[in-house]
Amino acid sequence: MKPITITNVRVVDLRFPTSRESIGSDAVNKDPDYSAAYCILETDAEIEGHGLTFTLGRGTELCVTAIQYLSKFVCNRTLESMTSDLNGLYLQLVGDTQFRWLGPEKGVIHLACGALLNAVWDLYAKAEGKPVWRLLTEMTPEEIVAIVDFRYISDALTPEEALAILQTGKRGQAERLAALEADGYPAYTTSVGWFGFSDEKIRRLCHEAIAEGWTHFKLKVGGDAIDDLRRGRLVREEIGWDRRIMLDANQKWGVEEAIGRTLQLGELKPYWMEEPTSPDDILGHARIRAEVAPIRIATGEHCHNAVMFKQFLQAKAIDVCQIDSCRVAGINENLAILLMAAKFGIPVCPHAGGVGLCEYVQHLSIFDYLGVSCSLEDRIIEYVDHLHEHFRDPVVIQDGHYMVPTRPGYSGEVLAASLMRFEFTHGEAWRTEHDEIRSLHK
Amino acid sequence: MKPITITNVRVVDLRFPTSRESIGSDAVNKDPDYSAAYCILETDAEIEGHGLTFTLGRGTELCVTAIQYLSKFVCNRTLESMTSDLNGLYLQLVGDTQFRWLGPEKGVIHLACGALLNAVWDLYAKAEGKPVWRLLTEMTPEEIVAIVDFRYISDALTPEEALAILQTGKRGQAERLAALEADGYPAYTTSVGWFGFSDEKIRRLCHEAIAEGWTHFKLKVGGDAIDDLRRGRLVREEIGWDRRIMLDANQKWGVEEAIGRTLQLGELKPYWMEEPTSPDDILGHARIRAEVAPIRIATGEHCHNAVMFKQFLQAKAIDVCQIDSCRVAGINENLAILLMAAKFGIPVCPHAGGVGLCEYVQHLSIFDYLGVSCSLEDRIIEYVDHLHEHFRDPVVIQDGHYMVPTRPGYSGEVLAASLMRFEFTHGEAWRTEHDEIRSLHK
Repeated sequence: MKPITITNVRVVDLRFPTSRESIGSDAVNKDPDYSAAYCILETDAEIEGHGLTFTLGRGTELCVTAIQYLSKFVCNRTLESMTSDLNGLYLQLVGDTQFRWLGPEKGVIHLACGALLNAVWDLYAKAEGKPVWRLLTEMTPEEIVAIVDFRYISDALTPEEALAILQTGKRGQAERLAALEADGYPAYTTSVGWFGFSDEKIRRLCHEAIAEGWTHFKLKVGGDAIDDLRRGRLVREEIGWDRRIMLDANQKWGVEEAIGRTLQLGELKPYWMEEPTSPDDILGHARIRAEVAPIRIATGEHCHNAVMFKQFLQAKAIDVCQIDSCRVAGINENLAILLMAAKFGIPVCPHAGGVGLCEYVQHLSIFDYLGVSCSLEDRIIEYVDHLHEHFRDPVVIQDGHYMVPTRPGYSGEVLAASLMRFEFTHGEAWRTEHDEIRSLHK
Repeated sequence: MKPITITNVRVVDLRFPTSRESIGSDAVNKDPDYSAAYCILETDAEIEGHGLTFTLGRGTELCVTAIQYLSKFVCNRTLESMTSDLNGLYLQLVGDTQFRWLGPEKGVIHLACGALLNAVWDLYAKAEGKPVWRLLTEMTPEEIVAIVDFRYISDALTPEEALAILQTGKRGQAERLAALEADGYPAYTTSVGWFGFSDEKIRRLCHEAIAEGWTHFKLKVGGDAIDDLRRGRLVREEIGWDRRIMLDANQKWGVEEAIGRTLQLGELKPYWMEEPTSPDDILGHARIRAEVAPIRIATGEHCHNAVMFKQFLQAKAIDVCQIDSCRVAGINENLAILLMAAKFGIPVCPHAGGVGLCEYVQHLSIFDYLGVSCSLEDRIIEYVDHLHEHFRDPVVIQDGHYMVPTRPGYSGEVLAASLMRFEFTHGEAWRTEHDEIRSLHK
């Protein structure tokens, strides 16, 4: 087969004006415009690699510029030169001697790494003619281990331990896959309880979601204490006590406040309390978790790399590990976190409240079930029902479950017409109708 | 007095081609071009506020763009509207509802916050006709406490505890100031032992530094183990055993490797081992510290915010707290860290290996001595002898000590001619002579 060479990297600043309808709103993120720094690896073959990192609107241009710079590590290379040493590629991207000062391995430049690596993986899977979950599942344990950067995590997980987890994961894989293909992977909906929604709208959305087969519902809290409780009771009235409710404070509280507020909300019997405080506060989460037990603590969507996740696990700070497929650098770093979580016995329930995230995380969770944790117990993927129409291979939800994707790639490819329409600032959505929103981006 | 209003924020991408001489080189940062995203608050009065955030060259444009965006929180405001609520300004800068996704409070956008806050503090001090250290020292404890963001740190330091520290700090202040004005603040030199220097050059520089009165010398390690030891012995030969040597691995090692390597280097009797592993690894540092005792562990130049420093202190992970005046957001966040370090009894020895950092951190350390920790025990400020000629009010070093600065402001103001000459890419330094270096920035 002719080698595939990357001939150019095209980067798009893609923004959807979701803030108009309070979609995605919570106690901290009051007006998100679901956006992405989006890149396309153009090649000398028929296929392209598409990758994105999720953002909230303003600042997407920073990730775009960072991707443009980092694309020098990808351009004019053959796909094979990258896939034969994916950890080497990761180290190049995070190790640029001048650029890394701006992180290292966090913030804008790490989000940019994520987009590029996602695009490389997309291209890799398309070249192999497989969806990413299958590409991963069909790799040998040794191949997976070779992708992971163990520099800073081997005190918690050695390559040998990772290998053993993956070898065990090969057993019973066919049966687990058959079960997934029949029933799908369990999901929960965040679309009913955004912060900016009225009581009436929340009631109506709960009602509709139950009719669609949803059994797990997330509610945003972190506002006035009485108000949070009232809204929680309202959701409980609608969904009853057999279904589950997750609460999400989006980092609103300090450690001691988080303990008090979580205990107050205990009457709602939450399945978990999410982001009770600063996403950097490992020891804070450990204390909160100890003091609010048995209420389970979740965090991760703002956790910026594998070194941080390692510590959340080591410190027994979380019950639920919520990786964000784009905040950490691509599938490489997601694999490291899946493996550490498996060793520590903590379920991974990926963050997917954004554009493209549902499309991505389904692959990670499916591989986690097929080859790493091998369990669905307390595993559930977030789902928000927005913007999927812009994807070439959108997620398929049936009866509150993600159906297993079958098309080659990582499922994050946005339709060319949508890329054109929502490109900031030249796309039609930003040029003509929405002058008011555009001015907010100044 | 007529109120001062910010009329415009000018931002400069300032880069010095230091990599040509291996200045600043270490095991990880092999070719730094000491740089800064630099901003000037233009006003309707005679004075301007100058602020910078230190960078290593490529990627400075990201900080420049971020500052340009965040300047909307400063432009067209009176100075008094900001100085009357500096914590409010901090919360505005770090809390932008869409921008914060790119952090929060870390990486590019936090470095940008730092530059802007540094500029506001510079303008504030100039308006008051005082150097920043004096402005801080003459504030009441209540005023200082009001500047600090306690949202995520009050579980480690309450406002009441901070107040008590600052009230105690008022005692004996005049005597401490008199001592500083006579002798200066102790410093150490990093300029002798950069990674890229030859053995001969290190010997010569040690020799010269001893003649200048230096007593503390930093050596970069993290290369080949035998080579590190050889270079350390060489420095010991030159400086003897009465002077002190600090070792700096610049994050080169994993946790277990760091323990082994630090123990190996123990024969050099280092005053501290700096950045033995990932800057995000609080628990890793705690383990290293426990296992290499009594060798002291230092880190902080890559520690991105007060929440991280809080945990380094809570976890007993460090013996030396090395704040970087620009990586955390301005004097506001540096104050939070100085106060926490004082409570935990850990000395602050600021990072200053960069352009403008020496100029900044002297103010922080002087205030720490005068009003917070009130001690010089195991306190020492880093010094590198490069690029000071570009500053309007450069640091003055005598006999290995920082002399107390007297001019109003934060001392970070770069001469107009230097701003012009080293502006990337239009300045003369980048336009004409150095085509080769310029091409590296592509």
